[in-house]
Amino acid sequence: LHEILSISSFSVDSLNLQKQIDELSSFSDSPAPSVTRILYSENDVLARRFIKNLMAHAGLSVREDAVGNIFGRWKGSEPDLSVVSTGSHIDAIPYSGKYDGNLGRRITNQSANDALTGYGFKPKRSLEVIMFTSEEPTRYGISCLGSRLLAGSVSLAGALKQTVDNHNISFLDAAKSAGYAKNEDFSNVFLDDRIYSAFVELHIEQGPILENEGCMLFYSFTLPFFTLHIYKCQFTLSLEGVSIGIVTAIAAPASIKVEFGGSGGHAGAVLMPQRNDAGLAAAELALAVEKHVLESRSIDTVGTVGILELHPGAINSIPSKSHVEIDTRDIDEKRRNNVIEKIHESAVEISKRRGVEVLEFKIVNQDPPACSDDSIIKAMESATQVLNLSYKKMISRAYHDSLFMARKAPMGMIFIPCYKAPEDIANGVKVLALTLANLSNVNVSSQAAFSS
Amino acid sequence: LHEILSISSFSVDSLNLQKQIDELSSFSDSPAPSVTRILYSENDVLARRFIKNLMAHAGLSVREDAVGNIFGRWKGSEPDLSVVSTGSHIDAIPYSGKYDGNLGRRITNQSANDALTGYGFKPKRSLEVIMFTSEEPTRYGISCLGSRLLAGSVSLAGALKQTVDNHNISFLDAAKSAGYAKNEDFSNVFLDDRIYSAFVELHIEQGPILENEGCMLFYSFTLPFFTLHIYKCQFTLSLEGVSIGIVTAIAAPASIKVEFGGSGGHAGAVLMPQRNDAGLAAAELALAVEKHVLESRSIDTVGTVGILELHPGAINSIPSKSHVEIDTRDIDEKRRNNVIEKIHESAVEISKRRGVEVLEFKIVNQDPPACSDDSIIKAMESATQVLNLSYKKMISRAYHDSLFMARKAPMGMIFIPCYKAPEDIANGVKVLALTLANLSNVNVSSQAAFSS
Ligand SMILES: [Mn+2]
Ligand SMILES: [Mn+2]
Ligand SMILES: [Mn+2]
Ligand SMILES: [Mn+2]
Repeated sequence: LHEILSISSFSVDSLNLQKQIDELSSFSDSPAPSVTRILYSENDVLARRFIKNLMAHAGLSVREDAVGNIFGRWKGSEPDLSVVSTGSHIDAIPYSGKYDGNLGRRITNQSANDALTGYGFKPKRSLEVIMFTSEEPTRYGISCLGSRLLAGSVSLAGALKQTVDNHNISFLDAAKSAGYAKNEDFSNVFLDDRIYSAFVELHIEQGPILENEGCMLFYSFTLPFFTLHIYKCQFTLSLEGVSIGIVTAIAAPASIKVEFGGSGGHAGAVLMPQRNDAGLAAAELALAVEKHVLESRSIDTVGTVGILELHPGAINSIPSKSHVEIDTRDIDEKRRNNVIEKIHESAVEISKRRGVEVLEFKIVNQDPPACSDDSIIKAMESATQVLNLSYKKMISRAYHDSLFMARKAPMGMIFIPCYKAPEDIANGVKVLALTLANLSNVNVSSQAAFSS
Repeated sequence: LHEILSISSFSVDSLNLQKQIDELSSFSDSPAPSVTRILYSENDVLARRFIKNLMAHAGLSVREDAVGNIFGRWKGSEPDLSVVSTGSHIDAIPYSGKYDGNLGRRITNQSANDALTGYGFKPKRSLEVIMFTSEEPTRYGISCLGSRLLAGSVSLAGALKQTVDNHNISFLDAAKSAGYAKNEDFSNVFLDDRIYSAFVELHIEQGPILENEGCMLFYSFTLPFFTLHIYKCQFTLSLEGVSIGIVTAIAAPASIKVEFGGSGGHAGAVLMPQRNDAGLAAAELALAVEKHVLESRSIDTVGTVGILELHPGAINSIPSKSHVEIDTRDIDEKRRNNVIEKIHESAVEISKRRGVEVLEFKIVNQDPPACSDDSIIKAMESATQVLNLSYKKMISRAYHDSLFMARKAPMGMIFIPCYKAPEDIANGVKVLALTLANLSNVNVSSQAAFSS
């Protein structure tokens, strides 16, 4: 391996890669440059066909499961050994950019294979690229739907039979319209523990906005009154002049839905002492989330109120109900759960003091964190060193399908910095390619294809 | 007058009144029993035709102005004297009940005329009933649009030429589609100061919810996740066993729009010290509104945040923008304006402390309060006494077209309690009828039609 990779001509066709990204981005419900691709929509089905064609063209054998996870396998010389996998999603939240999922993963995984094939590489362990269904929660409110199911979530397999979208279209009907869910049984999606020996995901680092740092727009949202540009690439890696991030852990996310019910009434007629304002209860809870997170005194604890809705939502109506959605994460599960407990105590205290009811306090998900596997971290480091790229070990504070795949296979993630040039992507693809090649060789008794 | 009214048979045909209310409520965009009637919609145009037919059938001469205020005049024996007027609206906010506007005013004014006509009454001063356009702000965000224009708002006359609704349909196009705004000049809607000698409005008192007090549903809103019942009739009058409220003043409303702009970002990736969360700024401002209102230490000062929106409004996105709408009212204009000043100071302080921008702090309207005219209060009291009805002087904390008509004529308002039986409406109609009859006689040199 080392020998071959020292040859500088080991390369990724970044122009072709860009062309594929651009072509994929054309399957969108919103005009370019934004991308909107909703699970099981017409454009999602077209994009899936495009991906399957790319896979077939590359000589991979293609399989789909009952929710539309798509698997493309490059059969290794030892096809009975557990498989080395990588993966990505192609669904896109409304008005997102074309680089979420697509860039970091789907096509580049393909390119990683192409790069290796172009080099005459033949894997020992089979290599598999997975397109996960519905990493985004846009349509059914469930993030990483495909990978959660692959990881064996019995509760999700059951819940999907009752799940409907905002237009009251059931998950089952939608999946069937896209050609999936034929026998309505999702438990056959569950992965066997012995299938994969490794899962590696390549992703763009996401993070704070830093204006004028040359970071490109990552997602943009067009809203009724103004256009927002949120979610730009994180600058950490680029600022530090580092090419690659090697993820050692994925922070543990939890989300909570809270509903307060108070008394409505006319904003003029109901005097202040008679009020039980559900909106002010929500405002207090949002500030309590911030307070409890800061009281943890750990930089790794974060908490966000991204959704706060008032009903009926009229200027002259006292809010009779309010709806709050809270996201809190930490790399320490116990510390995060302690924050959740304090948020719950605050909700109860606020409701008593204001004479409103806590109609709902629902912990929607409370996932444990995941650590990258040491052997995969080593494989990624070694690939980076061989390619003469600088790297930094880091925590992924956003979560990804990798969080769930970690339950079924030793996991690792490669971050690339803010996209500035096709080379940045190409570097990530090269690290992924060599990591996969390396891993396809691990614990294989016969002669390695590449010797390192 | 006294002589005739002591006859107990002076009556209002409450069955016919109920029939008219029911018929009017059938012009609705939502199914019965709710009513949705949006300005210049097909149902609004049909309801307007129904009203004009009622007017014509009663022998009134009908006129419409450029925004669709409809005037029905009962010519008095002294047609050159200034006119005694009453008025109402028929537009209805989504899913409202059938008694806002309709009950209190439109048809009952008609019935008041009918009651008087039935009694062989002939006015000296002409009597006029006005159907005001768009008392509700539903479509164009401007409440009491028709009466504000009648009161001579030059700024509104200008602004209407640029105003569009949420579907980007201009006010001009909508008005034209309903048959109005032919020459696009709204300044000819302005009333001359000498036209009216009095304006009296009959309305249901609005106020807090009191469950199980037998108060009927006033408005109900169907929302995606639950059905809310807000705005029930106020119970004050019924609880006190009083039949009629005589309004001495209308509280001074003001409304404010605030927009904060912060930094968005991923809820996992952006650590707490790096945040400039526009949503938390909004939450703090909502609580500051409550604080400043309570600090006024006056029971008559109220303040409400009925609208609070976060953008982009996703659970895993730090709010990069927030939008708050504030309603504050008082019967003391100076005290209310002091609250507005303090809210502004809080918005600035919060924005500095949180590193967010105040993108907008707009006082949308800041209307002065209106006092009922003493002579009209006396006429209403006298009518109540003649009818042997108990009454209570009170403040209207909601505002009405009367607030604006007070700028063009001596004004008064009659409240009826929570609707329990057609008699409650009939009592209000009788008081209105006698008040109009009384006022039509005021300062008329020739012999009064009724002598009191
Ligand atoms: Mn992603
Ligand atoms: Mn995403
Ligand atoms: Mn009203
Ligand atoms: Mn109303």
